[in-house]
Amino acid sequence: MERTLGELATLLGGELKGPADLVIRGIAPIDGATSQDITFITQKRYARLAEKSQAAAFIVSPEWASLPRPLIIVPRPQLAYAQVATLFAPPRRRWPGISDQAYLGRDVQLGAEVSIAPFVFIGDQARLGDRVTIMAGCVLGQEVEIGADTWLYPNVTILDRCRLGERVTIHSGTVIGADGFGFIPIEAGNYKIPQLGTVVIEDEVEIGANCTIDRGALGETRVGQGVKLDNLVHLAHNVTVGEHSLLVAQVGIAGSTKVGKRVALGGQVGVAGHIELGDGVQVGAKAAVSHTLRPGQVALGIPARPHREFLKINAHLSKLPEIYQRLKEVEQELRELKAGLARESEA
Amino acid sequence: MERTLGELATLLGGELKGPADLVIRGIAPIDGATSQDITFITQKRYARLAEKSQAAAFIVSPEWASLPRPLIIVPRPQLAYAQVATLFAPPRRRWPGISDQAYLGRDVQLGAEVSIAPFVFIGDQARLGDRVTIMAGCVLGQEVEIGADTWLYPNVTILDRCRLGERVTIHSGTVIGADGFGFIPIEAGNYKIPQLGTVVIEDEVEIGANCTIDRGALGETRVGQGVKLDNLVHLAHNVTVGEHSLLVAQVGIAGSTKVGKRVALGGQVGVAGHIELGDGVQVGAKAAVSHTLRPGQVALGIPARPHREFLKINAHLSKLPEIYQRLKEVEQELRELKAGLARESEA
Amino acid sequence: MERTLGELATLLGGELKGPADLVIRGIAPIDGATSQDITFITQKRYARLAEKSQAAAFIVSPEWASLPRPLIIVPRPQLAYAQVATLFAPPRRRWPGISDQAYLGRDVQLGAEVSIAPFVFIGDQARLGDRVTIMAGCVLGQEVEIGADTWLYPNVTILDRCRLGERVTIHSGTVIGADGFGFIPIEAGNYKIPQLGTVVIEDEVEIGANCTIDRGALGETRVGQGVKLDNLVHLAHNVTVGEHSLLVAQVGIAGSTKVGKRVALGGQVGVAGHIELGDGVQVGAKAAVSHTLRPGQVALGIPARPHREFLKINAHLSKLPEIYQRLKEVEQELRELKAGLARESEA
Repeated sequence: MERTLGELATLLGGELKGPADLVIRGIAPIDGATSQDITFITQKRYARLAEKSQAAAFIVSPEWASLPRPLIIVPRPQLAYAQVATLFAPPRRRWPGISDQAYLGRDVQLGAEVSIAPFVFIGDQARLGDRVTIMAGCVLGQEVEIGADTWLYPNVTILDRCRLGERVTIHSGTVIGADGFGFIPIEAGNYKIPQLGTVVIEDEVEIGANCTIDRGALGETRVGQGVKLDNLVHLAHNVTVGEHSLLVAQVGIAGSTKVGKRVALGGQVGVAGHIELGDGVQVGAKAAVSHTLRPGQVALGIPARPHREFLKINAHLSKLPEIYQRLKEVEQELRELKAGLARESEA
Repeated sequence: MERTLGELATLLGGELKGPADLVIRGIAPIDGATSQDITFITQKRYARLAEKSQAAAFIVSPEWASLPRPLIIVPRPQLAYAQVATLFAPPRRRWPGISDQAYLGRDVQLGAEVSIAPFVFIGDQARLGDRVTIMAGCVLGQEVEIGADTWLYPNVTILDRCRLGERVTIHSGTVIGADGFGFIPIEAGNYKIPQLGTVVIEDEVEIGANCTIDRGALGETRVGQGVKLDNLVHLAHNVTVGEHSLLVAQVGIAGSTKVGKRVALGGQVGVAGHIELGDGVQVGAKAAVSHTLRPGQVALGIPARPHREFLKINAHLSKLPEIYQRLKEVEQELRELKAGLARESEA
Repeated sequence: MERTLGELATLLGGELKGPADLVIRGIAPIDGATSQDITFITQKRYARLAEKSQAAAFIVSPEWASLPRPLIIVPRPQLAYAQVATLFAPPRRRWPGISDQAYLGRDVQLGAEVSIAPFVFIGDQARLGDRVTIMAGCVLGQEVEIGADTWLYPNVTILDRCRLGERVTIHSGTVIGADGFGFIPIEAGNYKIPQLGTVVIEDEVEIGANCTIDRGALGETRVGQGVKLDNLVHLAHNVTVGEHSLLVAQVGIAGSTKVGKRVALGGQVGVAGHIELGDGVQVGAKAAVSHTLRPGQVALGIPARPHREFLKINAHLSKLPEIYQRLKEVEQELRELKAGLARESEA
């Protein structure tokens, strides 16, 4: 794979400064690029490495337009880097056709050019769209439906009746459609609430490794179009996540909570059950959200508070020992003052 | 599957208000029920949806006895819903017999009507009770023992010598019997403490997806009868969990800690090692428990404190910036007052 | 397996008190040891169990040298216990050779005495060193490299091009080399940053069950020599962890962060992206580290603070309601005092 700098500038819609016919064969970080690579500056601290970089050319924002090297100038260098990286990415290799070491149940429907690797189990009446890829060790339950161009990495489990849309990516070890956690304490122990629902994963969703997305108790758990989940994320039964939301690693969301569109949850965030996070909500890493948040709210902390309030409290926390000390001094002074006045008035 | 309303009322031991011969074919939430479904009201906010619901009948508490629809009146509608859902749940389908695409080691003992799906590996001298179900992709180590009617969902791993009781359910991706985390820092690095123990899972336990339950260093890690674990729960070596306790998703318990009976731990709770949580302890989501808790204690926060103390502190946290401000004002007033008095006494 | 007490004393470099020819057949905890076992005292609270213990002999520190039982006296009894346990540990059993129920891709290179169990998938051009063990259900991508004596427990996934060193241990369910979480919000949703890098696991690393270690976006994610990870740990793309660091269960580290050597992170700790934890840093369980920490720093809390500061603040937090109450009283007294003085001066 090779491209000229001019071709890349055109692809990116960027301004070319340098030889249009310069040949680029890859993309690499500023300190690892060879003379055949293009690199990029996304943060100030990387700019100082530019001089020593071996890179053939740089993708930069207008701020660095005077750098005396071949450049493509764009408004968003990180996006441009991602676009070029997409271009140079090696194609993902998949099993050619259907392995005879896989197991396919009865009445399985397969689209065109499906890839099914060895040691894949596909339950009865499952339906796979065109160009679906199921890598080794995946298990699909009965009546599972998977849309066109969806890709399951190795050792993914999709339980009975769950449905995945088109162009979905599921990383290894993820489990979709396990029973939700529903038990009612009774005298003899805990009575299980049967989990009769399902999971729906909409188009263009990407789910990281070792996530768990439980089926609804009744009805669905639903992950909206374009949502991206990092690794080890837990979605409980009947959760819904709106379009294009981003959930960072180890987030957990309790049952029946509705997460809006374009919500961003930081790593290890916990969200209580039966609440709503409005569209555009942002929650900082490690927070515990126990109440409904209005659209656009930015929250932080345990329990989560509005961003500014959290910062203010946190700053004052450091002063807490000092506050206590000063309070004691004030009390002492006041005591002395009153004692002095009492003596005076007696005198 | 169909049942009359009268049959359901009898099953639930509830009071019937409406036609006993009304035919019910399923159970569904209040806003999704069809005219063949029974539904239920478990919370006030759902009651207002009753009028518009298409449901044929309602399971309600005495509070809603005057609802002008066919009713079954019970003291605990949520439990009754679960019981009816159990009735209408489709049977779980399993591999009929033993797949010739599975691997069985030497001297494996199998009970009657065991189900072993393709791509299951069962180590030497494993013993499976009657009607055990092992779904695709599971791996059982050597000398593993599994009691009657236990069910392993796909891609579960049970390592050597671990023992599961009867009527246990393990969801996909869970790992039972990996080595506990035991290392001693030495000059050359970290010396591994061999993990020679095992894991015992007692009867009627249910374990969610992608959990990890480590084997004891010496002796056992033990999960007591009827315990229910949600997804992504971590139990370290030599932990014991008492009967009927409930651990919500992403809980982690460090080594050798003893959790009592009927304990409830909220999502993402962390519990330190070598402590005890007494019977009936309840810990709120996200808390970090660093000390032993007496039976019945309710704790919250990081580090965990008694529930009331936590709420009181948390309420005052919001006032912390104000407290600081008011303290500074008091100091200022006191300074002015003393200065004034000093001037007066000089005068 | 049996050893005399004298042989064990020599192995441990400890002082023998008792019959050198006493035969020991195992090691067990103080309250579970039989008359054929040696046991050990590592904590005071176990010492009181010594009298009743059936153990044939004890490994103790000099503090317990007067215990009237056969003894081996050593400076570090816990290390000595681990060494004896290593001696008595049963050998780990592995598949003899290469199963014909495994799948090996084209141009796979295998060292001597490799063990490949049933239902293992090995991608094209993978290279396995001598005595590598791949247990059932593992999936190795293309061009994966695995060093000599490395051991993969069942159902591990290693994606394309990742490299593992020698004497590495990976526990079940762990996923190495899934895509890092890189997305750029654009109008149409989120643009995926291709994850073109890889993962390098150095020699003697041990990784727990159900961990996720993502590949670099460009370049590597690297886990240094001798590092030990507990279960359910998440390392994001381009993280590096220095030699001999210990990360307890459910830790999550965000992208590009550099963790130094011999760092210890407690359970459920979260570490922000693009920061550094210096050599020897220690972070208490559940903390959230948002800033770079200097070598040797000890931090705690959310957000993490220096250890002493955290303890001081936490102690004062309990006093916060009292502080507020006392502040109000001071204000009231001051008001009354000023009112009294005003009346006086009017009089």
